[in-house]
Amino acid sequence: MEALAPLTSAQKKEYMQQALQQAQLAENIGEVPIGAVIELDGRIIATAHNLRETSQDATDHAELMAIKKACQVVGSWRLERARLFVTLEPCPMCAGAIINSRMAEVYYGAMDPKAGAAGSLVNLLADTRFNHQPRVYAHLNEGESKQMLRDFFRKIRAQQKARKKAQK
Amino acid sequence: MEALAPLTSAQKKEYMQQALQQAQLAENIGEVPIGAVIELDGRIIATAHNLRETSQDATDHAELMAIKKACQVVGSWRLERARLFVTLEPCPMCAGAIINSRMAEVYYGAMDPKAGAAGSLVNLLADTRFNHQPRVYAHLNEGESKQMLRDFFRKIRAQQKARKKAQK
Repeated sequence: MEALAPLTSAQKKEYMQQALQQAQLAENIGEVPIGAVIELDGRIIATAHNLRETSQDATDHAELMAIKKACQVVGSWRLERARLFVTLEPCPMCAGAIINSRMAEVYYGAMDPKAGAAGSLVNLLADTRFNHQPRVYAHLNEGESKQMLRDFFRKIRAQQKARKKAQK
Repeated sequence: MEALAPLTSAQKKEYMQQALQQAQLAENIGEVPIGAVIELDGRIIATAHNLRETSQDATDHAELMAIKKACQVVGSWRLERARLFVTLEPCPMCAGAIINSRMAEVYYGAMDPKAGAAGSLVNLLADTRFNHQPRVYAHLNEGESKQMLRDFFRKIRAQQKARKKAQK
C-alpha cells in the first residue's frame, strides 16, 4: 500500500479545530462536548459529535458515528488511508471500531482517565495481538478539549446545585 | 434496581438458538456467521446478524447492531435490565458497546482467539476500572456456534482453492 502523505503541523491543527467545532455542536445541545472528523486524501469525509442523550443510543459516540459515515462515503469497511481526529481519547467501543475499520492514524486531544482505551486504562490500539494497529498521536490541541469538557461539567454541577437549592 | 428474574436453562438455550438462527441468516448471504439477540423482561426486543460485507460498514457486527436496535425499542441508551445472547465472543468494539449500554448480562457461544475481548485476548467486561461490568456466561451452545464458523471457513477455503485451480 502506498504510504500516506505526511500532514503538516498546520493541517493537523486545522483538522483538530474542526473536531473541536464538532464538540461545540454537541455542547450547544447539552451533550458532553466530544467531536470527531475523518480525513482522507486531504479532505474531511466525515464529521460527527456525541449524540447519546439526544438519540438515546448507547453507541452514538462521535468516533463511531464518524467511522460509520466514512465507510458509507468510501463504500468500504476498510478505511486504511484515513485519519481520525477526535477531541477525547477513545473508549473501548470506539477504539475497537478504529481497529475494525483499519484506520491508518488516530489523533486525539485530552486523555480520558475514566474510560480511555488508547493509553489511560488500556491501550487497545497498541495491542499487537489484534489484527491492526493505527499510528496514534495524543495531546493534539489538548488544552482546548480539556477546557471545553471542564466548563461543561462545571455548568452541569452548577445547574444541579441550583436545582437542589430551589427544591429546599 | 429490582433484581432480574433468573432465566431457566431452557430459556437460555432457546435465546441462544435464536442467536444461532441469526448467524445462519448471515451465512446465507455469505457473511461470517455471527448472530445476536437481546432479551428484556422475557421478550426478544432486538435481533441482528453480521452484515459487514453486505453493508461495507466496519461497525456492522451483530452485537453492535442489536444494541442500537434495543436502545431504539426501549427509548433509552440504558439497557440495564437486558440480556445479550451472541454466538461468538465479542470483539473490543462490541464489548465496549456492552459496557456503554450497561447491559445486565451477556451469554456467548464460542471463544474468539483472534479478537475476543471477553476473556480470550483481553477481558474488558470484567475490568472494574470501567464504569459497568455485566455478568458474563461463556460457552452456551458453544459446539453449534463453532461448527457453523468452522464449516463457513472450510467452504471459503475450498472456494479459493477451486478459483486458483481454475486460473492455472
